[in-house]
Amino acid sequence: MDLKKIALNRLKDRGVSINDMAKIVYDIQKDFIDDIDIKKCEETILLILNKREVINAVLTGIAIDEGVEKGIFDEHIYKIIMEDQGLYGVDEILALSIVNIYGSIALTNFGYVDKCKPGIIGIIDKEGKESNKCHTFLDDIVGAIVAAAASRLAHHNEDK
Amino acid sequence: MDLKKIALNRLKDRGVSINDMAKIVYDIQKDFIDDIDIKKCEETILLILNKREVINAVLTGIAIDEGVEKGIFDEHIYKIIMEDQGLYGVDEILALSIVNIYGSIALTNFGYVDKCKPGIIGIIDKEGKESNKCHTFLDDIVGAIVAAAASRLAHHNEDK
Amino acid sequence: MDLKKIALNRLKDRGVSINDMAKIVYDIQKDFIDDIDIKKCEETILLILNKREVINAVLTGIAIDEGVEKGIFDEHIYKIIMEDQGLYGVDEILALSIVNIYGSIALTNFGYVDKCKPGIIGIIDKEGKESNKCHTFLDDIVGAIVAAAASRLAHHNEDK
Amino acid sequence: MDLKKIALNRLKDRGVSINDMAKIVYDIQKDFIDDIDIKKCEETILLILNKREVINAVLTGIAIDEGVEKGIFDEHIYKIIMEDQGLYGVDEILALSIVNIYGSIALTNFGYVDKCKPGIIGIIDKEGKESNKCHTFLDDIVGAIVAAAASRLAHHNEDK
Repeated sequence: MDLKKIALNRLKDRGVSINDMAKIVYDIQKDFIDDIDIKKCEETILLILNKREVINAVLTGIAIDEGVEKGIFDEHIYKIIMEDQGLYGVDEILALSIVNIYGSIALTNFGYVDKCKPGIIGIIDKEGKESNKCHTFLDDIVGAIVAAAASRLAHHNEDK
Repeated sequence: MDLKKIALNRLKDRGVSINDMAKIVYDIQKDFIDDIDIKKCEETILLILNKREVINAVLTGIAIDEGVEKGIFDEHIYKIIMEDQGLYGVDEILALSIVNIYGSIALTNFGYVDKCKPGIIGIIDKEGKESNKCHTFLDDIVGAIVAAAASRLAHHNEDK
Repeated sequence: MDLKKIALNRLKDRGVSINDMAKIVYDIQKDFIDDIDIKKCEETILLILNKREVINAVLTGIAIDEGVEKGIFDEHIYKIIMEDQGLYGVDEILALSIVNIYGSIALTNFGYVDKCKPGIIGIIDKEGKESNKCHTFLDDIVGAIVAAAASRLAHHNEDK
Repeated sequence: MDLKKIALNRLKDRGVSINDMAKIVYDIQKDFIDDIDIKKCEETILLILNKREVINAVLTGIAIDEGVEKGIFDEHIYKIIMEDQGLYGVDEILALSIVNIYGSIALTNFGYVDKCKPGIIGIIDKEGKESNKCHTFLDDIVGAIVAAAASRLAHHNEDK
């Protein structure tokens, strides 16, 4: 199985489908792109997942979240990540490895979804805070993929 | 006159006061920090402007905006910057030189204000698009200072 | 004339040819990629210049350098940029808008060429410091293009 | 025990002392700063480790390296990180969360040490490649701390 398929399966295991992400992309871009629809947003999400740097960020972020859930890290880093303390920013930094390759439109969209937490992002954020699940990295990874897809659609629309 | 004072005067010349910026910082953080008020936000804005990298970004960004207004650049870059074309991202990049030094909270706040354009940011953005003024760099610089101040307040609140 | 051609002409006007850049790329990668030659490096430089973000950085950086030479900015920013003061980092930041889209290999190569200044980068850096020319932005822009090309070659070599 | 002390102990456990890092800082800056000595470099390293973002990066990076050594991640991410594959860049990205807060001088120094691997950085890189140790994140974290310290010394020297 190729790494792209593995990354998509890992996202699915953690509760995030391609359609979940596509719906947020659609909401962000529907006022700016004429012929946008959910199908096009899903196709764009899949194109984002072609990039090796995106796959690496997905696999690494989910590995850390799961490592925290399983209690395999030492107590200090466990506590910091599990509680997603306000000053822990490694999750956002990891997400930036996705966002950066899609330029500044991706960056501002990432900031927006990270703050407003639309759709699935809000759901996994809440789940991570209220249950024994750890979604500290997952919500930022998903936000970054969504922001990258929104940016890619915007760029291709401008280039038409 | 020191460079900090010069940077503040240049912002004022271009239509942005310390109070304009403090009001946005207050709105972003008022739900998260108990003893916040406009005065504290103004003081924080002034602390952000102590940093050499912030002063350099302010002076450079405004110099480019004014250069565009005066028509001193060659036609290609003039057209790209004056129209703040969707794919021009150098303005956001310059703003990042401010945002980066305040960590990931600053980054997500920057994405948020860049997209939602609260207060003075919306006013200068509109003015730049409708008049012969060029505010392509200014709105991002102001957004970055606001985001940096919001992040600084959040960090100091957590550390208490 | 398209923007890519304009960007290449502007680089040429300021003293930097495609071959100058290709030679540095070749030196960086010759020990790691078997079938590398100058022609392949030149082709890669041209692919880097296809990207809108790269073109924007080239045109903006050169516009600022020329603005400084012509004395059209106010005295404070003129002095800071002309002398390329140690704490002025906007030039590196602009270069990062090129480097970021090519991932972390590009970033470390950029740090390397920015510090070691091989080939044309050293020549324009010296010229900028000793004459009335201003190359504050140019040397970083060229370093970024070279680093991006080296990274692109490394990625395609790994994917083979 | 406070988090700074814990981070320093974790670095020590993994084979990196304050003195190891200070020696590289000294070599980078000795030609540029008159009154530099190893003691000053050590003090600067300790100041860098005061920052919460630096502590978080150290603790997270080492936790991942140890997780890989212990075989607690799934096979795909294990293989990618253990072999520090050429296209895996999450380690450099994590290091950037340290480098970014010290501005562009830190960034270029990071690129330089990441490529040239002086002193302890080369030793842990080699050890990670030749033994069953995993130092994929450690060498970049150490490079980032060194680069941040070199930048901090340069800034304070300019400001004198």
